[in-house]
Amino acid sequence: MVWCRVVQRFSVETTAHSQMVDITPSVIEAVTDSGASSGLCFLHVLHTTAGLTINENADPSVQTDILDGLERIVPFEASYRHREGNSDAHIKATLVGFSEALFIERGSLLLGTWQGIYLCEFDGPRRRQVVVKIVPEG
Amino acid sequence: MVWCRVVQRFSVETTAHSQMVDITPSVIEAVTDSGASSGLCFLHVLHTTAGLTINENADPSVQTDILDGLERIVPFEASYRHREGNSDAHIKATLVGFSEALFIERGSLLLGTWQGIYLCEFDGPRRRQVVVKIVPEG
Amino acid sequence: MVWCRVVQRFSVETTAHSQMVDITPSVIEAVTDSGASSGLCFLHVLHTTAGLTINENADPSVQTDILDGLERIVPFEASYRHREGNSDAHIKATLVGFSEALFIERGSLLLGTWQGIYLCEFDGPRRRQVVVKIVPEG
Repeated sequence: MVWCRVVQRFSVETTAHSQMVDITPSVIEAVTDSGASSGLCFLHVLHTTAGLTINENADPSVQTDILDGLERIVPFEASYRHREGNSDAHIKATLVGFSEALFIERGSLLLGTWQGIYLCEFDGPRRRQVVVKIVPEG
Repeated sequence: MVWCRVVQRFSVETTAHSQMVDITPSVIEAVTDSGASSGLCFLHVLHTTAGLTINENADPSVQTDILDGLERIVPFEASYRHREGNSDAHIKATLVGFSEALFIERGSLLLGTWQGIYLCEFDGPRRRQVVVKIVPEG
Repeated sequence: MVWCRVVQRFSVETTAHSQMVDITPSVIEAVTDSGASSGLCFLHVLHTTAGLTINENADPSVQTDILDGLERIVPFEASYRHREGNSDAHIKATLVGFSEALFIERGSLLLGTWQGIYLCEFDGPRRRQVVVKIVPEG
């Protein structure tokens, strides 16, 4: 068993100021394309006002509740110093995080039943870049 | 040095609605069982209303303060849309995160003196699944 | 392509109670020293009242806004039980996280244009330890 890299990159066009975009299909495609039967899948978003998280893939109102909840925690308007007017997005992204490390088993992502992978847009709409590195085993 | 996978899975029975369960012993056991002297240990919880974090392993009141602090930030009751009544748990889990990547050195986990690994239950009591992948070196 | 470990450790002297210290130069140095042209770079901070995050490397007022924002979310003074008086720091560190997993491509870190890597001090000033593990490919 050896370490082989498979790096991919995909972009996500967000359409709202705050939005959670389900990127699970893109990640599954990257895993499938790699041919890896088992291993690890690393994701990283190349921005500072968008993040990556995992959450429920069934009821879309969960996404609304997460975005609304984050807005209550870190309001868009507050006494921020940064003049670009997106300080809340920087804080939200740091809270959510920029990376994920997922398991690959039997040729597909090992996710819980209700787990989907989301790009969290906090300062959109924008085009966002996500890089994927797949480390196959065997 | 080659990449060898060792995957394990363990379950955690939580006993309260909100709870931090010290899973460090289970992770150490997985590392020991793997025989790895150095490498990486990846953890992932297969849920959307529970998370993984690292925090103080000494005074249990730190865990209480963390859970209370998260409850102040994301109250159980608010104007959520998701009808299952656990939107706060989804938000808390996204804030805490679902994965950890830890170092293995000299046959054991490389943790700081006060670091323990915790499963954070936000919608319990439930049985939770944690998967562990150990990547030994050498 | 084989898995080879390169572990390094560096310390960060923080100078304020709350502070974001740009550790990108130290991480780049570790990557350069490893000679890896591609691979992964794992970071872990060995504490429970300091964290690691990624955020904007240009306008320092973003760091101020993030620290102020976290202080609004998790105030230094509240009804905490832990007697050391740093419960807010424990909570903030759990929100921010303790690890990062970064990509190495073409001999350097694959970061977004505006991304810097920060140690987040929440209970300083102190000397903090960060461990780095570089997994080169090829």
